[in-house]
Amino acid sequence: MQSPETFPAFADEARLQLHHNGRLRHLLTLKGLDRELLTELLDAAQQFVTPTGSIAARRDSLRGRTIANLFFEPSTRTRASFDLAGKRLAADVLNLDVNTSSRKKGESILDTIYTLQAMHVDVMVVRDASTGVPAYIAQHVEDHVSILNAGESDISHPTQGLLDLLTIRQRFSGFSGLAVAIVGDIAHSRVARSAVHGLHTMGVQDIRLVSPSAFAPGKDEMTFATVTDELDVGLRNANVVMALRIQRERIADLEGILDVEDYSANYGISAARLALAADDVIVMHPGPMNRGIEIESTLADSAQSVITQQVSNGVAVRMAVLEHVLSTLAGR
Amino acid sequence: MQSPETFPAFADEARLQLHHNGRLRHLLTLKGLDRELLTELLDAAQQFVTPTGSIAARRDSLRGRTIANLFFEPSTRTRASFDLAGKRLAADVLNLDVNTSSRKKGESILDTIYTLQAMHVDVMVVRDASTGVPAYIAQHVEDHVSILNAGESDISHPTQGLLDLLTIRQRFSGFSGLAVAIVGDIAHSRVARSAVHGLHTMGVQDIRLVSPSAFAPGKDEMTFATVTDELDVGLRNANVVMALRIQRERIADLEGILDVEDYSANYGISAARLALAADDVIVMHPGPMNRGIEIESTLADSAQSVITQQVSNGVAVRMAVLEHVLSTLAGR
Amino acid sequence: MQSPETFPAFADEARLQLHHNGRLRHLLTLKGLDRELLTELLDAAQQFVTPTGSIAARRDSLRGRTIANLFFEPSTRTRASFDLAGKRLAADVLNLDVNTSSRKKGESILDTIYTLQAMHVDVMVVRDASTGVPAYIAQHVEDHVSILNAGESDISHPTQGLLDLLTIRQRFSGFSGLAVAIVGDIAHSRVARSAVHGLHTMGVQDIRLVSPSAFAPGKDEMTFATVTDELDVGLRNANVVMALRIQRERIADLEGILDVEDYSANYGISAARLALAADDVIVMHPGPMNRGIEIESTLADSAQSVITQQVSNGVAVRMAVLEHVLSTLAGR
Repeated sequence: MQSPETFPAFADEARLQLHHNGRLRHLLTLKGLDRELLTELLDAAQQFVTPTGSIAARRDSLRGRTIANLFFEPSTRTRASFDLAGKRLAADVLNLDVNTSSRKKGESILDTIYTLQAMHVDVMVVRDASTGVPAYIAQHVEDHVSILNAGESDISHPTQGLLDLLTIRQRFSGFSGLAVAIVGDIAHSRVARSAVHGLHTMGVQDIRLVSPSAFAPGKDEMTFATVTDELDVGLRNANVVMALRIQRERIADLEGILDVEDYSANYGISAARLALAADDVIVMHPGPMNRGIEIESTLADSAQSVITQQVSNGVAVRMAVLEHVLSTLAGR
Repeated sequence: MQSPETFPAFADEARLQLHHNGRLRHLLTLKGLDRELLTELLDAAQQFVTPTGSIAARRDSLRGRTIANLFFEPSTRTRASFDLAGKRLAADVLNLDVNTSSRKKGESILDTIYTLQAMHVDVMVVRDASTGVPAYIAQHVEDHVSILNAGESDISHPTQGLLDLLTIRQRFSGFSGLAVAIVGDIAHSRVARSAVHGLHTMGVQDIRLVSPSAFAPGKDEMTFATVTDELDVGLRNANVVMALRIQRERIADLEGILDVEDYSANYGISAARLALAADDVIVMHPGPMNRGIEIESTLADSAQSVITQQVSNGVAVRMAVLEHVLSTLAGR
Repeated sequence: MQSPETFPAFADEARLQLHHNGRLRHLLTLKGLDRELLTELLDAAQQFVTPTGSIAARRDSLRGRTIANLFFEPSTRTRASFDLAGKRLAADVLNLDVNTSSRKKGESILDTIYTLQAMHVDVMVVRDASTGVPAYIAQHVEDHVSILNAGESDISHPTQGLLDLLTIRQRFSGFSGLAVAIVGDIAHSRVARSAVHGLHTMGVQDIRLVSPSAFAPGKDEMTFATVTDELDVGLRNANVVMALRIQRERIADLEGILDVEDYSANYGISAARLALAADDVIVMHPGPMNRGIEIESTLADSAQSVITQQVSNGVAVRMAVLEHVLSTLAGR
C-alpha cells in the first residue's frame, strides 16, 4: 500500500465485530466467535447449498441494498464469490478496482470508506495486504455500515474459514473426534489461521500444523495445535488434510535452505502419502492450486478431494454472512 | 488521448443540450441553463435524498434502459456514483474501461459511440481529458441517445456543479445574499467552473475566486466573480468555502514560484482561518481530499463540513438527471 | 498465454457442441452446423431485433441464471455485447478480467473453469488467443455448463459469423444466388473463417477471398471459396463486400513486401471501387475499423454500409444463443 497510513493492531476485534445483542455486525475474524454463532452461520449457509448442476439458490432478501467490493489486492475467486452472493440475494453490487484510481490519487483509505458510506453502501467487502485494515475501517464507519474481511494480510480470511468448516461438517456431520492436518506455509497463511480458529471453536482437538521450520507458526499463536515439520506425523490417521497454496516467491527467498522440488518432495500431498491417513480422509485446498507442487494433480480431482465443494460452499457462506449482518443492522 | 481526432470548440453547447421543448436532452454544461431548469433538477434530486443510515432511494423508472459509463479518464467516485444512480433506477449499467481495449486498437471515439448506440444504449456517461469531447459526441449521436458529461478536461463537470448547488440549498434554503469563496487552482478546475456558472444562474452575486496568481482564471471568463490571491479577502464573511483539490504535479511544474508547503500555508483552509468567515459558514470539497494541504484534516470532519453530504447528493443528482433526460427522449 | 498448458487440436468440435438431441449445448464453431440449426438461431435472433431508437428487446427468460464473461484477450465490443445480451434476459453477469488476477497467480485455465462451475455459473463466454481453448474447456465441463466461443485465435468467432448471416439475410431475404467477397488478411481472420463456414452452409456458392498473397488462406481450407489477390476480381458483381480489420503489426512484419499505403491502395474498399459490384451491394466490417485504410471513411457511414446493423444484430444473436443453449441444458 502506498498509503501513508498505518493500521494499529486492534486488541479486541472480536468485540468490535459484535453488536451489543451478540449478533455479528461486521465479520473481521473467526477468533473469539463462539460455537453457537458459528453454528448459526453454518446452518444458514447450508440452506443456500444446492447440488452441482441444479439452479443456484436465490432470494430477494437484499433488494435495495448495496454491497461494495473493495479489493486493494487482486482476486478472482473471492471477488467473484462475493459478487455472486450479493447478486443472488438481489443486492446492487459495486465492484471497485481501487488500485487503479483513488489510491493513485492519494486518497486515504478512510476517505474512500466515507465516500462509499455517503453513497448509502450498506456492506463493504474489503481485501487488503496490510494487517489491521478491516478492523481500522470498522472502527470508523457509522453504525449502519457493515465491514466484511475478504482477506487480510497473513492474518485472517474468515469467510474462507467458514467455508472450510461447512465443507468438513457436510462430510463428517460434526467436528468432535476429528484429526485435521494443515500443510504448507503456515507462517504466512491467513487461510490456516482462520481455519484453525474456527476448528478450535467447533471442538476439534487434534489440529496439526505441518510445515518446513522456516514456515512454522509463531511460538505464541495457535498454541492448542500441534506443530511438526514431518508430513508423515501430520498425516497419520488424519480425517482432513488441507494443503495450502505455496508462494514460489517465498521459497525463492529461502535460497540455499529450500527449493520447490524439495518442498514438493517433502510436503506435497499425494495419494500415496495419504495411505497414512484415516480411511475416510478428505483433501482440501483454498485455491488457486499449484498442481504437482503442494498437491498431486490426480488427487485434486479424485473422490477424496472436496476442493470444488469448498468453492460452492464459499458462495453459500457469503450469502449467509451478508444476510446475517444486514439483519443485525436492521435490528439496531 | 492517443486518438488522432481533435475536438473543435463548439460555440453553442447550451443550445445543443436542449430539446426544442426546452428540456435537457444531454447534460454538457451548466453554462446557459436557466434558473427554472436548474431548480427543477434540484427539486427532482431532493426527492432522492434520504438521511444517512436510511435505505437508499430507489425506483424502477429506468427498467429496460441501458446506461454506459465511458470513462476515458480513471475515476472511482464519479463512476461509482453514476453506477449506483443507474442501478437504483433499475437500469442496466455497462461499465467500459476504454483505455485498455478499443483505444488500444485505435478505434476512433465516434466509432465507439456508434457501436454503443447500435447496442441500444440510451445514455452514455462520458469522462474525457480532452476539451470538447462531450459536445462532439452529442453532435453525432442519434436523437434517441443522451450524453452526460462526467468531467471534461478543465472545462466542465456539470453534475458536480449540481450537487454543489443542492448541498448549498439544503443548508441555506436558497442562494440570494450568499457569499461563496472557491479556493485553489481555479485555472485548471472543471469543478470551479461548473460551480461558478451554477451559482451565478441561481442568483449568487458575491462569488470569490481565490488562488495564487499562477492559478488564477482567464481574464475573460467568469467576469461576474471577484478574483483575488489573498485568502483572507476571500474568506471574510463568506457563507460557503469550497476548497479545491490541488494537483501536486501542477505545483511541481511551478518550481521556484510555489511549493506545497507555501500553498498549504497561504491557501489551506483551516478552522482558524475560518474565523473570518460568517458564523454559519459551511466547508465543501469535491474530493478526493489531500488532507493537511488544501484543507485541515480536522476541519474536513467537523460540523462545518458538508463534504459527505456532497457525496450523498451526487447520487441523488445523477438519478434526477438520468430520469430527466430519459423523459425528454421519451417525449421526443 | 503464460499457461504451460497446450490445447490439442480437437477433431470433432462439431459433434462436441451438440447435445444428443441435435440441439446446441455449446457454441464452439459454425463449421459442421447444419442449415436447419443455423436458420433456427437466426429466426430466434430476429425476434430480438428492434429498430434503432426503440427500446431494446428484453425478457426474463434467464432470471436466476449466471453467465461469466471470461476474456483472456481484451475486448470492448464483444464483451459489452454479451454483457448486454445476458442482462436483457435478466441473467446475472459476472465479468472476469482474467489477465490481471488468476493467470498472474499461475492457476490453470481448467481450475478457473472448475471454480466457476462450482459457483453455479451456467454459461461461460470465452475469448482466448490460443487455438483450441473453447473446445478444450468444453470437453472438461460438467453437463450443466455451456461454453460459448467469443473469439478463438485466428480460428473461429461463431457469434460474429451468425450476426453476419443475420445482417445479410435481413437485406436479401435469403442466401441463394449471392456473391460475397471477403477482403483483407484472410489468413489470420477468425471473422472470415466463421463467415465462410456459415455462408457455405446457408447455400452461398460464390464466396471470394481477396487478399495479398501473404495473407491468403491455407491451401486445404475453405476450398469451396475462390481465392484471389485482385480486388477488382473479387468485387465484380458482388452483393456483399466484407472488409476485414487490418492489423498494422502484421503488415509491419512483412517489411519490404507490403506497407500500409500499398495495402490501402490495393485492398481498401471505397465507393469508387464498389462501382464494380452489384447495384444492391452492402458493405460490412466486424469493427473496430481503421477508417481510411481497409475502408473509406465516408463509405463506412453511407447507405451501403450495414456496419451498425451488424452491431445491433450482435446483441440479438447472443441473446438467441444464450436462450438456445440454456434450453438445451434444461432439457438434458
